[in-house]
Amino acid sequence: MEKFELHILGCGSALPTTRHYPTCQVLNVREKLFMIDCGEGAQLQFRKSRLKFSRLNRIFISHLHGDHCFGLLGLVSTLNLLGRTAELHIHAPQGMEDIFAPFLGFFNKQMSYRVLFHEFDTREAAQIYEDRSLTVSTIPLRHRMPCCGFLFAEKQGANHIVREMVDFYQVPVYELNRIKNGADYVTPEGLVVPNDRLTTPAAPPRKYAYCSDTLCLPGIVEQIKGVDLLFHEATFADSDEARACETFHTTASQAAGIACDAGVKRLLIGHFSARYEDESVLLQEAQAVFPDTALAGEMLCVQI
Amino acid sequence: MEKFELHILGCGSALPTTRHYPTCQVLNVREKLFMIDCGEGAQLQFRKSRLKFSRLNRIFISHLHGDHCFGLLGLVSTLNLLGRTAELHIHAPQGMEDIFAPFLGFFNKQMSYRVLFHEFDTREAAQIYEDRSLTVSTIPLRHRMPCCGFLFAEKQGANHIVREMVDFYQVPVYELNRIKNGADYVTPEGLVVPNDRLTTPAAPPRKYAYCSDTLCLPGIVEQIKGVDLLFHEATFADSDEARACETFHTTASQAAGIACDAGVKRLLIGHFSARYEDESVLLQEAQAVFPDTALAGEMLCVQI
Repeated sequence: MEKFELHILGCGSALPTTRHYPTCQVLNVREKLFMIDCGEGAQLQFRKSRLKFSRLNRIFISHLHGDHCFGLLGLVSTLNLLGRTAELHIHAPQGMEDIFAPFLGFFNKQMSYRVLFHEFDTREAAQIYEDRSLTVSTIPLRHRMPCCGFLFAEKQGANHIVREMVDFYQVPVYELNRIKNGADYVTPEGLVVPNDRLTTPAAPPRKYAYCSDTLCLPGIVEQIKGVDLLFHEATFADSDEARACETFHTTASQAAGIACDAGVKRLLIGHFSARYEDESVLLQEAQAVFPDTALAGEMLCVQI
Repeated sequence: MEKFELHILGCGSALPTTRHYPTCQVLNVREKLFMIDCGEGAQLQFRKSRLKFSRLNRIFISHLHGDHCFGLLGLVSTLNLLGRTAELHIHAPQGMEDIFAPFLGFFNKQMSYRVLFHEFDTREAAQIYEDRSLTVSTIPLRHRMPCCGFLFAEKQGANHIVREMVDFYQVPVYELNRIKNGADYVTPEGLVVPNDRLTTPAAPPRKYAYCSDTLCLPGIVEQIKGVDLLFHEATFADSDEARACETFHTTASQAAGIACDAGVKRLLIGHFSARYEDESVLLQEAQAVFPDTALAGEMLCVQI
């Protein structure tokens, strides 16, 4: 199966602890790396996880709080020191370019590559990226400032050719692409060989949803229905539900409730408040609602 | 002896490695913490080293390269989240406030405390800070942009009272401060008791010099003569001396030569280029010139 794996580089919240880095993740889709948020230390963690800078071309920023974007300054500067030439695309809420571009410009008088900002409106779900194998859409969230999650959806792949049957019917090579895409084969004698005798279906396309930071927001359920993996922030435990509400964050059991309602396959929780030295309380509260929950952790790699 | 100790929080150079953080140090002088440079991840390392944010009031920035100051953004924001009220003083080369203040303002709409920038001219040595026990002076360096090192010099402390002699001569309490500061004591009978019978001298004042980043610059020798500890950048090995020169950095053996000429007590080298997986080559080259050399390392704490 083609690679579709998530690397957690940081899963703490705004206050630093000795246990966590601020938020940063990297999604590896067929060796293209997509970074999601970029907290302080992202470039250090990126190096530690042995990912390749040259494979990183797009960064998605959920919102303009420091613990989700301060790492960009070091990362952009490092890529410049390394002599990168490929464009780097940063997708972010409106306002990012105005505040980052002058700062980056000051610290990188000469750039070896271009940084392109693509700003989105956080109020409406929209597809903001597409390539041959993937689309990325925003998931509007509710936080203390404009904020979006992201839905990474694989496209339906082509069917797999069954080599023996293709040989048996002596299908010419130039027909194979059409057949992969669902066409039947007609022999020179006029015999119609139905597609399902020549192919097996591609694996169902996979989906990853990233939702952080946000108030518990049942409105997202429709958009993340059935995803293979949901990362949802779970900043607080039940005992701090009032605090979660005040600060526009979610509790672990609320995150699990969303996972349940959306019928996702697996839930990963993170963005832990510094107050929990032992995060097992968060895990337990989530698993009581949605058993297939795991705690995020630095250097965790999840196959989707 | 009063505390005068150096904590290394990061001693790498600009490119991140899995071994080092970018430059950051904290000097603890009698429980006042002075931060020297503030590379990305400084606040994380600060936490790890169990230093107290509340004791940190002054930060000295050598120059405006990202690996020496990007950590300020997260640190300033965290102190705000923690509800700090004490002023934070940042001493830095000219231009720092213009570039940092708007960025910090965007990410901290409401500040619980004031950040005050004190800019200095990097071209001339000058005393930029003084309190009861310490002065800090700039050491002009030569780098690709305006840059200064810093000399932290304890003031001569008061003499120590010899309790037995003071009791013997029945010196009144109100005379003690004058005696600590060197005065003789005259008894009611007119007998002059010389100060050196009543006191022992204070420990000699200690000095720490921080020199990074710079071309090897013999001109600094006069200013750092005899310091107890010299931190000097040693980005490169002898084999990369040409590269050191091109990039306005110093080799390990050049740093040791400066230590030798200045007659310092101990040398600590750091700001290692990412190219040296094994830094023992740098240590050996320095020790061949100046034996009392040590390698900096994250979480190293040196008593001065």
